[in-house]
Amino acid sequence: MYFRKRGVMNLDNFFKAKSIAIIGVSRNPAKIGHVLFRNLLDAGYKGKVFPVNPELKSLFDIKAYKSVLDIKDKLDLAVIAVPAEHVLKVVRECNEKDIKDVLIITAGFRETGNKIAENELKEYLELHSMRCIGVNCLGLIDFYHNLDLIFLPRSRLKRPEPGNISFVTQSGALGSAILDLCSANGYKFSKFISYGNATVIDESDILEYLLKDKTTDVICLYLEGVKDGEKFFKALKKVTRKKPVIVMKGGISDEGNKAAKSHTGALAGKSEVYFGIFKQTNVIIADSLEQMLYYASTFSKISKIKGSKVQIITNGGGYGIITTDAIAAAGNLKLAEMNEKIKNKLKKEVSNELVSFSNPLDLIGDADTERYRKAIESCMKDNNIDAIILIVLYQTPLITTDIIDVISEFSRLKRKPVLVVSTGGNFTRVLKDALNDEDVCTYEFPEHAVKALSALVRYKGSK
Amino acid sequence: MYFRKRGVMNLDNFFKAKSIAIIGVSRNPAKIGHVLFRNLLDAGYKGKVFPVNPELKSLFDIKAYKSVLDIKDKLDLAVIAVPAEHVLKVVRECNEKDIKDVLIITAGFRETGNKIAENELKEYLELHSMRCIGVNCLGLIDFYHNLDLIFLPRSRLKRPEPGNISFVTQSGALGSAILDLCSANGYKFSKFISYGNATVIDESDILEYLLKDKTTDVICLYLEGVKDGEKFFKALKKVTRKKPVIVMKGGISDEGNKAAKSHTGALAGKSEVYFGIFKQTNVIIADSLEQMLYYASTFSKISKIKGSKVQIITNGGGYGIITTDAIAAAGNLKLAEMNEKIKNKLKKEVSNELVSFSNPLDLIGDADTERYRKAIESCMKDNNIDAIILIVLYQTPLITTDIIDVISEFSRLKRKPVLVVSTGGNFTRVLKDALNDEDVCTYEFPEHAVKALSALVRYKGSK
Repeated sequence: MYFRKRGVMNLDNFFKAKSIAIIGVSRNPAKIGHVLFRNLLDAGYKGKVFPVNPELKSLFDIKAYKSVLDIKDKLDLAVIAVPAEHVLKVVRECNEKDIKDVLIITAGFRETGNKIAENELKEYLELHSMRCIGVNCLGLIDFYHNLDLIFLPRSRLKRPEPGNISFVTQSGALGSAILDLCSANGYKFSKFISYGNATVIDESDILEYLLKDKTTDVICLYLEGVKDGEKFFKALKKVTRKKPVIVMKGGISDEGNKAAKSHTGALAGKSEVYFGIFKQTNVIIADSLEQMLYYASTFSKISKIKGSKVQIITNGGGYGIITTDAIAAAGNLKLAEMNEKIKNKLKKEVSNELVSFSNPLDLIGDADTERYRKAIESCMKDNNIDAIILIVLYQTPLITTDIIDVISEFSRLKRKPVLVVSTGGNFTRVLKDALNDEDVCTYEFPEHAVKALSALVRYKGSK
Repeated sequence: MYFRKRGVMNLDNFFKAKSIAIIGVSRNPAKIGHVLFRNLLDAGYKGKVFPVNPELKSLFDIKAYKSVLDIKDKLDLAVIAVPAEHVLKVVRECNEKDIKDVLIITAGFRETGNKIAENELKEYLELHSMRCIGVNCLGLIDFYHNLDLIFLPRSRLKRPEPGNISFVTQSGALGSAILDLCSANGYKFSKFISYGNATVIDESDILEYLLKDKTTDVICLYLEGVKDGEKFFKALKKVTRKKPVIVMKGGISDEGNKAAKSHTGALAGKSEVYFGIFKQTNVIIADSLEQMLYYASTFSKISKIKGSKVQIITNGGGYGIITTDAIAAAGNLKLAEMNEKIKNKLKKEVSNELVSFSNPLDLIGDADTERYRKAIESCMKDNNIDAIILIVLYQTPLITTDIIDVISEFSRLKRKPVLVVSTGGNFTRVLKDALNDEDVCTYEFPEHAVKALSALVRYKGSK
């Protein structure tokens, strides 16, 4: 396709558009076109927005147009939310207006059996070198450009802060639920892209674009099926060399595969083939949505790790044991053995006789912030240790909230990864949120921290 | 031991004591004895409380005693929080005062190598037919009798509401973190028992007691190791026939096993032996703390299930697919096939052409409460369906909050289990909490709902 630049599709207009037409706006706040228009305004988008609907004079005091052809300004992007039967007509008008980038939200194509309409649309788009994200998608967001083009209300679905994770999803609803949860948990995003039926632009095009995107360090992909396996394989191979790609595959069972066909019309294919590709291309495979999330958070915050030797520091013996079990189960992690000299020095500083100076280093229930500080400091100095899993159970009375500052400071030095595990209710949540704000890696359960660390060591080791 | 009643240790005084001495109170709010005393008062305990400390006249305007021997009233229970070297002396005084039930919080016995002291203590306790929970434990709570005897401040660790889950834990800190999290997530508890070194009363005694406990329907057990395997096997066999026992085992790896020895002095033994026992006794094995929690919640709310045929209802295609994959992976669940007549009737009622009337039943993104109501009603009537996994993604604008009433009403009928999956931020959390208040089973991720349902079907099928 001649609109590719050095083989990579240029998707800049989808994320950096300076002027956007929303085609199919409505006065009815429950309608997709209405929500899209409103979200863009509410997000604080700085460019020009043109609502299009033949039956409207204006919306929110902004002049509406019968067609994009009536708009005098140059348009970078058209967002299309008209019924399926009108999409092609609208796309023709976009072409006539020289809009080469269209985001088509409209459903009712291949996924409902309407293959002819989708093929006709695809043919037209490609013939006229038009780039299209969709059809049958939720839309996209660029968090750095306040470009909010998903059709779910901001009151229902909170948007995350700008950051370095980009999330690419074949399923819109799944993407929206995850985005909402991520926002509540302090995850920070660069781009969110729901690509639906991948009529023109597919997962591989988006991956390659994100490889060059300066604000994306980690890519999450929810995938049901790809049409061009070879292209996908090549894209993954290229991208994972530079940036981690975390994939959650839907439709891995025969039954799930069948369901996927009627969802995004995906030709899901044999899951063995997919997992073969993932392994060959150093993709990070997530077994569950939950795992995709704590992997993403970990990879977004930790950029380097020297080796696989882990020291556990804890104020709860049981948590230390469970973490030890998880490390043994991971396969590619080892329990670190502290340097004797450093250990002996720490023993003098932390004289409580019940403390177990081993791995886990159990500071026990009466540990205070100072005891933690000394323990972390020792482990930071110790070259026998590559990463620290720091368990802090805030239920004990002697831990004061300044432990947040202590942990943040060590974490900020980035000398070695520190993964903080805390389980609890509201008090724990507040302290955890404070650590998240400081870009510290936090986890609710020890198993999550260990699995994330294991994936990190595996990825870095195979790069 | 002659203080057993028909072979089962009578632990009533630990949970229903009408008069309690707290031995080792202190004015210092950071001290264990102080926190214990204060928690009991703050919890609204209705019985009499006697603080004991030779150096105090009173605490919170309540007269303090030099020794239990100075107290005139009959005492049901003594809680001991004095240094290890004074424990035996205090226990002798308790015996002299005819207190046969003692909760010993004090650490520094077998777990730190002080085996002689623990054996001496054990011998004395058994010789005088004294029941003892501890040593080296966090304490216990009876949520129905406001009997709060754990030494962590209520400001740090919120206590759950009364309910039907009892949690037995060898590790205090682990127990406290989980209790705190459970409280925040609306889990409801009958009893919490941290039994530490199991000097006299062990996990098996507690399990057998809970079997007869009317307010306990589900038992969770965090275990590092047992001393009497045969007793444990017999207890489990007896208890699991009537009540589900969910076990999380710490120290399953060699390294974790080693760590367990220095924690509660547990002889953890080969993990294969444990898992052999668990399988033979129909124990529900939890792979992680997180899993123990969603298992507990599920078993506490669902008491019957007819079979293994599951219908998925969703407003997000991707979530339906992932749930389908999880059902296929579970091994013991089947996708239900809706009765044709009921399906056709539903098709007429829910006429949206994009809806997929299959399994998953995909009500798609514009589903409203009414469409959900009709779909759930149909599935409730359908004998081909044994359980419903109901995915409700609240990010879409057409779902109104009255869906909570609709779901609660169907759930209350208890005709078949309804497991509700919702992922999201604050808006989702509020609606989820509302469902929890109505004792509906809720989950953050589809995989959790499916695994819980699978465990339920396995347990009920093997009973």
